[in-house]
Amino acid sequence: MARWQPGAAERMRGAALDLFVERGYDATTAADIAAAAGLTERTFYRHFADKREVLFWGSEEFEASFTDPIDALSPDVGAMGAVVAAVVGGAGRFTPERREFASLRAGVVDATPPLRERERDKMARLATVIADRLVARGVPATDAQLAAHSGVTVFTTAFARWVAGDARSPEALCADLFDDLARLTDQLKSSTETV
Amino acid sequence: MARWQPGAAERMRGAALDLFVERGYDATTAADIAAAAGLTERTFYRHFADKREVLFWGSEEFEASFTDPIDALSPDVGAMGAVVAAVVGGAGRFTPERREFASLRAGVVDATPPLRERERDKMARLATVIADRLVARGVPATDAQLAAHSGVTVFTTAFARWVAGDARSPEALCADLFDDLARLTDQLKSSTETV
Repeated sequence: MARWQPGAAERMRGAALDLFVERGYDATTAADIAAAAGLTERTFYRHFADKREVLFWGSEEFEASFTDPIDALSPDVGAMGAVVAAVVGGAGRFTPERREFASLRAGVVDATPPLRERERDKMARLATVIADRLVARGVPATDAQLAAHSGVTVFTTAFARWVAGDARSPEALCADLFDDLARLTDQLKSSTETV
Repeated sequence: MARWQPGAAERMRGAALDLFVERGYDATTAADIAAAAGLTERTFYRHFADKREVLFWGSEEFEASFTDPIDALSPDVGAMGAVVAAVVGGAGRFTPERREFASLRAGVVDATPPLRERERDKMARLATVIADRLVARGVPATDAQLAAHSGVTVFTTAFARWVAGDARSPEALCADLFDDLARLTDQLKSSTETV
């Protein structure tokens, strides 16, 4: 029974999302997910620690899609330039055919506290790995943290709009939101002087 | 036994922190915390849903220290100006005599996954309540979200440095970090053009 199951993780992820939407997260077990994917519970636990992890399958590739573009940059690109490259790279994963799945997934995650906490953990880790890459490029730790968190805020805001049906691509949404952020933080030059 | 216990919540918070530091979070029960504070388990559950909540006592006042300064601003102050006022107001709660408790608490929270998740939840809520106040002032929702999250990033970064022993006050750290953020996001004007 230890045979390699091609696409087993993807199938269980799809089955889990369907079950979470239909029955709810609490009423769905790991055995239900495995059965719906035509697999055994043992195969489930070969891939995932528990049912909460199923919708977070592929996190390493997700993070790499942000960090690989940073590694490809010339050393003279500044902290925010690197963050823009990371976020636009990460956003590029989310092609139009992925929107339906992403949108259903976001609905379930937002409505389910343990999944919402896990999603926040995923985004906090993303900020940490981006900040670590910036530090490796010589960016001071505080700048790296501020820049990385700003980038993750832009990404999560863009992603929320994309799954809600915004016609722009995730990359275009991110570019627009970086412009919005630049416009907003421009106000800091006057406001911090008056406080 | 239903008598009002003056300062019961503060006492249990202090006792919980001591026990979490000495024995660890997992090895400490609600009954242990109540006993260490000279109170009954029943009194514990009158104040807190579970032991995780003890270190999050006072969250409403914490949030109000950020939102009250926004409510006091004249209507012409922009989104980032309001966020600066909120964050500097919130930072103002953390006077020098609170640093020892805050520092011990931060150590326990960082080392304890369920507390770390709850802390992230607290900061995500803070961003939401700040964004809601901005929207109430007429700030568009996306600007409100970007500005509020930027402010919370500045606050959490400043707070981490303060508990780690930085000599500046939390307000001064926040002001410096807003300057850092303005300098970093200034790079967006050139970097987004080149992507």
